Amino acid sequence: MTQTTEREQRFEQGKAVLDAIDGVGGANVVDALADVSPELAHQVVAWGFGDIYSRPELEPRDRQLVTLGMLSALGGCEPQLEVHINAALNVGLTPKQIVEALLQSAVYCGFPRALNATFAAKKVFAERGLLPIV
Amino acid sequence: MTQTTEREQRFEQGKAVLDAIDGVGGANVVDALADVSPELAHQVVAWGFGDIYSRPELEPRDRQLVTLGMLSALGGCEPQLEVHINAALNVGLTPKQIVEALLQSAVYCGFPRALNATFAAKKVFAERGLLPIV
Amino acid sequence: MTQTTEREQRFEQGKAVLDAIDGVGGANVVDALADVSPELAHQVVAWGFGDIYSRPELEPRDRQLVTLGMLSALGGCEPQLEVHINAALNVGLTPKQIVEALLQSAVYCGFPRALNATFAAKKVFAERGLLPIV
Amino acid sequence: MTQTTEREQRFEQGKAVLDAIDGVGGANVVDALADVSPELAHQVVAWGFGDIYSRPELEPRDRQLVTLGMLSALGGCEPQLEVHINAALNVGLTPKQIVEALLQSAVYCGFPRALNATFAAKKVFAERGLLPIV
Amino acid sequence: MTQTTEREQRFEQGKAVLDAIDGVGGANVVDALADVSPELAHQVVAWGFGDIYSRPELEPRDRQLVTLGMLSALGGCEPQLEVHINAALNVGLTPKQIVEALLQSAVYCGFPRALNATFAAKKVFAERGLLPIV
Amino acid sequence: MTQTTEREQRFEQGKAVLDAIDGVGGANVVDALADVSPELAHQVVAWGFGDIYSRPELEPRDRQLVTLGMLSALGGCEPQLEVHINAALNVGLTPKQIVEALLQSAVYCGFPRALNATFAAKKVFAERGLLPIV
Repeated sequence: MTQTTEREQRFEQGKAVLDAIDGVGGANVVDALADVSPELAHQVVAWGFGDIYSRPELEPRDRQLVTLGMLSALGGCEPQLEVHINAALNVGLTPKQIVEALLQSAVYCGFPRALNATFAAKKVFAERGLLPIV
Repeated sequence: MTQTTEREQRFEQGKAVLDAIDGVGGANVVDALADVSPELAHQVVAWGFGDIYSRPELEPRDRQLVTLGMLSALGGCEPQLEVHINAALNVGLTPKQIVEALLQSAVYCGFPRALNATFAAKKVFAERGLLPIV
Repeated sequence: MTQTTEREQRFEQGKAVLDAIDGVGGANVVDALADVSPELAHQVVAWGFGDIYSRPELEPRDRQLVTLGMLSALGGCEPQLEVHINAALNVGLTPKQIVEALLQSAVYCGFPRALNATFAAKKVFAERGLLPIV
Repeated sequence: MTQTTEREQRFEQGKAVLDAIDGVGGANVVDALADVSPELAHQVVAWGFGDIYSRPELEPRDRQLVTLGMLSALGGCEPQLEVHINAALNVGLTPKQIVEALLQSAVYCGFPRALNATFAAKKVFAERGLLPIV
Repeated sequence: MTQTTEREQRFEQGKAVLDAIDGVGGANVVDALADVSPELAHQVVAWGFGDIYSRPELEPRDRQLVTLGMLSALGGCEPQLEVHINAALNVGLTPKQIVEALLQSAVYCGFPRALNATFAAKKVFAERGLLPIV
Repeated sequence: MTQTTEREQRFEQGKAVLDAIDGVGGANVVDALADVSPELAHQVVAWGFGDIYSRPELEPRDRQLVTLGMLSALGGCEPQLEVHINAALNVGLTPKQIVEALLQSAVYCGFPRALNATFAAKKVFAERGLLPIV
């Protein structure tokens, strides 16, 4: 198998994971990168999703939980939070669990990060008709 | 007194502080959280303002100063900066002092953080008819 | 019930959660704060653990996962990472799952954060005789 | 020479560097600060560009490279990234080199920072008619 | 007046402010930079302290308050926190006010940042024989 | 070619780049991860160095410059800064250029980050007998 074929194979594997988890949100990111940094799009898919995300050592649901923690803490990642809050719903986390995880971020990252992340969640929940969370 | 009553009492105490300091900005945040994370709203008010902000060990004006420093440094907290620049004005800091505190942030956090915070201040000052700062 | 009693009650509730989850690591932090900021110690315990951690909306194991994500992303929190990697083991996460969560942080926070967090985990695993991870 | 004259001289020196490197982007920042924090504008120009940027120890192109790294890593600095991606083009870095530098940021800062920075670059490249990058 | 003289003058002005505020801590930083980056030492003193710190628009005590907020929020700045907690004591903030400002940082930056900053304060207070804080 | 062979090949390619650039510093990191997260070591080498670093779109010297900017800005990455300051020397950046790049970080990240990075550089320069920088 040539190196190019291997590269394509890793991309295809990652694309399947990305589509299953992130749905249209992930595909939109890949499309938006096509004319500026197709290599970054390739690496997000082939490495981030193909090599790392698809490893069986951690359940997709658990990966989303830990990822929500990271994105809340980093700050300035609202677009990525929206993608991953959608993903978290897709892999079985409930809105209540997501909201609670972001409440937990108040303890470790402070209220501003928790508020920004919770408003990103509100936007996603509204788009999916999940409000109010009770 | 039942635990629920105590919880409500802490909320009421915090709400009084929040209203006095942040005015409508704080109330808007609480309202916006009502359908997604009422618990986060409760904790911002009952803990952040009721338990911590209302402690007498530091003047409200001094709390705003140190908070402006934190929000400038964190980055990506422009919505919170707007609330707290309003709050800083409400507790007696002058526009000149606020602008000077954000200039100081250039030394410790670099120009990008100082610029983003200063433009948040400009937005608040414009809304309150305080420009130009001379 | 007086306010002081309520305050003590919340502390006791949080202390029970802290001891169950963090063991000696949490108690050491409380002790180290006694002569400088007993109020910070109180709030870590009464609010962080009593009010937030003990909420049933998220399993302790899930709280540790999302917390590991936050601490890796924040950077400069190696002491807290050690406490929480111990806690993660105490609530049922396996070393392999912890290591995998920190590998995931490479994707979202970059290698330096992932490396620092993984070396904190290595220190904890070594102390508990859990190395090598296979 | 009076201190005021020296102060003006440092500003003029910095303004020349700023105009040469950042063009209209830098001037816009200075103008936008005029009614809120003219001192911050002065310091950006006189210190940032006059005292530091104009030092011969590092080529302008190299300064832009290292600055792109910082702005990607900080997060929440999209306005500054746009100014400095324009500046990077102005001092001789190619779109391909800029895109590659931001790809490199994925390794050290994670994908969210790399994505946000790359989309800032896409906006600048589009305004200058440089897309697609091939 | 030649440019060199002006440069020296700004340094001398800053050095006087630095010595008055930071005492031996600031001088140690300058000395430690002498063989690696004397220009960084010059800029810390001449710009940070001479141009910015010495401006009358904000009291030294207020500058320390806002700076403590920034350093707590940034994370990984324990050496600078020690210098500035000493400085805060030198310009009239009490240990209780400093401890309270760092407690406030728990609300905006989370417990890990507040804990690291508080332990830096404990170290300084111990060196100056100020413990316990009551 | 089987997938395992491809995986090994990417690792070998990355290892050659790592050894050429980082020397013993990179190898030490890989060794230290062997018993806790060999997969993280594999990804640092195979992805970070094999897939990304070895791309011809940016010179190794330029990659180090932009990386120094990122590591200074992130904070709390002193171990990685030491590895990459060594690497920067290995690929042709002079001590003066490195020191100047870190001075530049004062403008964008503030003095604390610039100071911490410069002291990391001082440690590396001392180990390599390069002090004083004149």
